[in-house]
Amino acid sequence: MKTRTTFDQTLSELKQEILRMGFHVEEAIYRAVESMAKQDVNMAQSVIDGDVLIDNLELEIEDLCMKLIATQQPMAKDLRRIAVGLKIITDLERMADYSCGIAKITKRLVGQPLIKPLIDIPRMAQLAQKMVKESLDAYVREDVGLAANLATDDKQVDSLHSQVFRELLVLMMENPKTINQATSLLFASRYLERIADHATNIGERVIYLVTGKREVLND
Amino acid sequence: MKTRTTFDQTLSELKQEILRMGFHVEEAIYRAVESMAKQDVNMAQSVIDGDVLIDNLELEIEDLCMKLIATQQPMAKDLRRIAVGLKIITDLERMADYSCGIAKITKRLVGQPLIKPLIDIPRMAQLAQKMVKESLDAYVREDVGLAANLATDDKQVDSLHSQVFRELLVLMMENPKTINQATSLLFASRYLERIADHATNIGERVIYLVTGKREVLND
Repeated sequence: MKTRTTFDQTLSELKQEILRMGFHVEEAIYRAVESMAKQDVNMAQSVIDGDVLIDNLELEIEDLCMKLIATQQPMAKDLRRIAVGLKIITDLERMADYSCGIAKITKRLVGQPLIKPLIDIPRMAQLAQKMVKESLDAYVREDVGLAANLATDDKQVDSLHSQVFRELLVLMMENPKTINQATSLLFASRYLERIADHATNIGERVIYLVTGKREVLND
Repeated sequence: MKTRTTFDQTLSELKQEILRMGFHVEEAIYRAVESMAKQDVNMAQSVIDGDVLIDNLELEIEDLCMKLIATQQPMAKDLRRIAVGLKIITDLERMADYSCGIAKITKRLVGQPLIKPLIDIPRMAQLAQKMVKESLDAYVREDVGLAANLATDDKQVDSLHSQVFRELLVLMMENPKTINQATSLLFASRYLERIADHATNIGERVIYLVTGKREVLND
């Protein structure tokens, strides 16, 4: 019983650390898009500077997982809980990289008036943030319903991305002076779409953890 | 001694499986870009159809890792060898996704004459393929020198990407009719640049595995 309690405590610590990493990733997504909408270079720079913190969290959590496996030698489902944790932090780290990508675009665009008001991109960011939070809640609570629900938001992000893409192409064709900036915005939109994909990945991993079934939530 | 032999055999099996997955990823990169250069929709479709094979390999290898940890309860460096294996297959799976992304672009572009002959993009693909192979060789042989060398190729891929990017922007500005295709090519180039980044990630993981030091090969 003593070992089991220690294991449960360390597993709960692992989940807390993953939530903490997720919180920083949500912040990074929010600040990256906010800095773009407000053309705030300092805020963009803070996202870029903060990436090392998220990278370090990934390494720390990786070490915690390894320590947990080595000292507790968990079996079956406990082992899979840790394996899923290891995969989730890779998804989170990628999301942080995409946020940095957006922050770098903000820095490049600064001083240029925006060719269109940012409406859909902040909406995508909001959805992506919500998806990150919900995917991690689904992991911590092993909630299959919450995990499966991610597909709905992911489809909405996909459709916003297609819309942004079409609008920007039209803008570029109408006015070649917008090409440079429109291309950057295309990439920003794509990065948000990828962040939402990674949150959906986490949902798929949670479903597999709980049910043992591999499911593709939104192809 | 018996256990150690079993462990070594299963570890060697794990490494073989990772190499096999890597081989399929190399093929996917090659065929994706070849299909683009030759505007061969069937070849592009074969890359997209083949992705499920790579996804399944990832799951199989993940299970093998879990089995290895659960039955052999490896400690310290052996445990880390498996942890690195788990991370590598995530990188490989992402590379395969990017190859699919390129194949999808090929399908979209079919029937349109290319706005410029593809020279730099196939060159990037060649380098990326070589990097995948070398990063996995570095893992299997735990060869730090080979891992560190990836930085050179990664820098070359980055610089080809910047060049392609600049050229395509100029093309679009000179002739707005090229915008649709040029945007697609921008993304293809970016995907290859990302594939090279993932190979470099593998190199960084190998260096950490062997030396215990975290090194950023090409920032």
